[in-house]
Amino acid sequence: MRYDCVIIGSGVAGYPAAVLLAREGHKVAVIEEKLIGGECTNYGCVPSKSLYMVAEAFRSLKKVGAEIRADWKEITKFVERVVDESRKGIEYLLEKHDVEIIESKGRLASSKQIKTDKGTIEAEKIVLALGTDPKPLPNINFDNDVVSNREIFYVDEKPERLLVVGGGVIGVEVSNIFAQLGTEVILVEAMEHILPFLDKDVAIIMRRYLKDNGVRIKERVVVKNIEKKDGKLVVELPNNEILTVDKALVSIGRIPKTKGIGLENAGIEVDQYGFIKVDKFYRTTNTNIYAVGDVVGGPLLAHKAMLESIAAYRNIVGKEPITLNYSLVPQTIFSGLELSWIGYTEKELRSKKVSYKKIKLPISYLSAVRIKDSKYSYVKLLLSEEKQQILGIHIVAPNASEVISSFIPFIIERIDLKKIAETPYPHLTISEIVREVAEYIIGEPIHTILKHI
Amino acid sequence: MRYDCVIIGSGVAGYPAAVLLAREGHKVAVIEEKLIGGECTNYGCVPSKSLYMVAEAFRSLKKVGAEIRADWKEITKFVERVVDESRKGIEYLLEKHDVEIIESKGRLASSKQIKTDKGTIEAEKIVLALGTDPKPLPNINFDNDVVSNREIFYVDEKPERLLVVGGGVIGVEVSNIFAQLGTEVILVEAMEHILPFLDKDVAIIMRRYLKDNGVRIKERVVVKNIEKKDGKLVVELPNNEILTVDKALVSIGRIPKTKGIGLENAGIEVDQYGFIKVDKFYRTTNTNIYAVGDVVGGPLLAHKAMLESIAAYRNIVGKEPITLNYSLVPQTIFSGLELSWIGYTEKELRSKKVSYKKIKLPISYLSAVRIKDSKYSYVKLLLSEEKQQILGIHIVAPNASEVISSFIPFIIERIDLKKIAETPYPHLTISEIVREVAEYIIGEPIHTILKHI
Repeated sequence: MRYDCVIIGSGVAGYPAAVLLAREGHKVAVIEEKLIGGECTNYGCVPSKSLYMVAEAFRSLKKVGAEIRADWKEITKFVERVVDESRKGIEYLLEKHDVEIIESKGRLASSKQIKTDKGTIEAEKIVLALGTDPKPLPNINFDNDVVSNREIFYVDEKPERLLVVGGGVIGVEVSNIFAQLGTEVILVEAMEHILPFLDKDVAIIMRRYLKDNGVRIKERVVVKNIEKKDGKLVVELPNNEILTVDKALVSIGRIPKTKGIGLENAGIEVDQYGFIKVDKFYRTTNTNIYAVGDVVGGPLLAHKAMLESIAAYRNIVGKEPITLNYSLVPQTIFSGLELSWIGYTEKELRSKKVSYKKIKLPISYLSAVRIKDSKYSYVKLLLSEEKQQILGIHIVAPNASEVISSFIPFIIERIDLKKIAETPYPHLTISEIVREVAEYIIGEPIHTILKHI
Repeated sequence: MRYDCVIIGSGVAGYPAAVLLAREGHKVAVIEEKLIGGECTNYGCVPSKSLYMVAEAFRSLKKVGAEIRADWKEITKFVERVVDESRKGIEYLLEKHDVEIIESKGRLASSKQIKTDKGTIEAEKIVLALGTDPKPLPNINFDNDVVSNREIFYVDEKPERLLVVGGGVIGVEVSNIFAQLGTEVILVEAMEHILPFLDKDVAIIMRRYLKDNGVRIKERVVVKNIEKKDGKLVVELPNNEILTVDKALVSIGRIPKTKGIGLENAGIEVDQYGFIKVDKFYRTTNTNIYAVGDVVGGPLLAHKAMLESIAAYRNIVGKEPITLNYSLVPQTIFSGLELSWIGYTEKELRSKKVSYKKIKLPISYLSAVRIKDSKYSYVKLLLSEEKQQILGIHIVAPNASEVISSFIPFIIERIDLKKIAETPYPHLTISEIVREVAEYIIGEPIHTILKHI
């Protein structure tokens, strides 16, 4: 069989390009060895945010001292239902656009040939949207009890005690979710602080919030060993410290899924970490073959992968290319007290030797913040020296995941802050901070006591 | 006593001007006859959104079949705590800026004189931020059982059956909150449909959502009488229909609080509905006296009032004026399935004879929508004929209250939609619709089956 384009992988990096190409009449196939929708839909964003919704409800009701009796099986059924619907949505989209779905592993045989369980197929262009696998601890394989993001949202029983190894985004999100649901969570991070890629002042607020919500955090600690004993996991930490837990989530990193794909048959190179090397058009070292999404590295985020998929499509059909500015990809940690940022961190600006002004704007006076959690919230602004440009913005607040998008136009266009300060933003929302930030930069904030007073 | 400026009313229309004036060294007093913070803080947005958070948690947990045991007293204690903190926040702000708070009713004696319980005070400038009172049903006074927004969020016991009279914003929000919390709610609206000021296609989605959540809705129905009997309310509807309920919320409109203020002593005129007439500088017919907020009419919204308060301050001190475009004030109904809009409705465009293109973009494919409620959500875009300008946007979706702010820059500035379509918006959020809307207008949506396919 011969196709105009074959895409290996049906996740967020794969299906957008497939849909866009097929819509224009190209003959397109998607090869998927597991579940349509890939990591995000089946094991990542979708199940985690479904469970997060439940965790948020628990968190809300704690404030009014309510008792909740929830059946864990019903909760996971809900998660499965949402995942199932999302997966079927993508299947429908592919089918409706006449994209052929080939259920198989795909292996490159040459620049234009892919071996599948259904025989070898030919493709004018190939897009690799292979994704990543979770990285295991050294010498400890994943199993029913030492799990990754692939299993944690679907476990048969809610663990009474959960060890989370790795305080990155997944580790922090899972710690918060299970802590809210009543599990005793111990979060272990090897580096100086959790979320080590973030500025310390932001990371320690998250540390404080998680601790206040019952998560035990151990930083600068490495798990030495995990053994099974009497249906439990016995975890060995430094200084002979022993923990006994029911489950362990390992979230210490990702491994690009490039093994056994036949990259060598097409002359495709990978970098030192195994990520596929691409140029700014997402072409691999074999210019007939594109690679997008997590497998090319950068921020491992669904929305970044989707834009790369669109970019690959545009380059394949010869439309005007898209150039993504990776430092401007908004990021979010969905953790009750949410953390969202866009632009640069202080660490990044310092390493680039860019001078900046830092403004920390407390926002606990906002009623929306008060209702959902008052004491931790603030906005950190990193402005250019002359205060004309926002270099980075960090929002530490409930619902920050939605609010960060309000700042996107400020980063990609020049927005007149005076106009924003003079525009009513809806009360009672967290988004009121947008106007407040504009007011603050201009110098006339209502809710902030200025220093000279 | 003599002041540079006296503000009557400490609500969202009052305190911002007070703070801004006092910060510049003006001698400022605020006269408040009841509670600092006014209607929004004490009886409106703040208690309703506190209770709404609890209602949303109930709604979430229904999806997983959880049982909740919550003590109503604990819930109202939480509401009171948030309101108390918000009120104290405003008090702190006023005190910190040396604004004098005079606890009294204020009554104009002349252009520059106000009578208070503590004697007559003099003011160079006066700002009237008087607010509104709830409008009662004809011949039926408010009491312990027939209540307004002043009492409904603080009732001693959660009503088993609640009648809501008036399907405007307050009526719909209260209906949703109590229905989620387990009260049987009957919502009665006199006009053709609830939310009569909105386009029918939007209003009927809310009707469907509320019905699906257990609210009984009666449209084109007027309450004829309410009588007390055996501790219950017996409600008479047309056609001899009788309802028995525990409480009735009357939310049929507002009355500007202009009685007994001595407007006549300063030559201040009101319009046919009793709202104070102001010019574009918020000066009343006595140019020494300003009026802002609900008492001048327009959308009765906290964020509109706050901007008017800022505008009054600017005009008093002779700074560059602010001109609010009232058709661009974003509005929100906080009702689980939230409804937010900015710009014009179809009704408004038709009455202005502006031609427009209407686009209804279903967004139930978005995972964030799926998780929080899939079947009702959509975005309605009203575009100028050549599709270059967004005339109006309606978001019908969970969390729409936060998402609408992401569209504000699109309305007040010219944003390049192509740039937006090429910018990753964070997954998994409702705000992803911003990029999807941009993509859709440009003509390359990924998640929408285009008609010609």
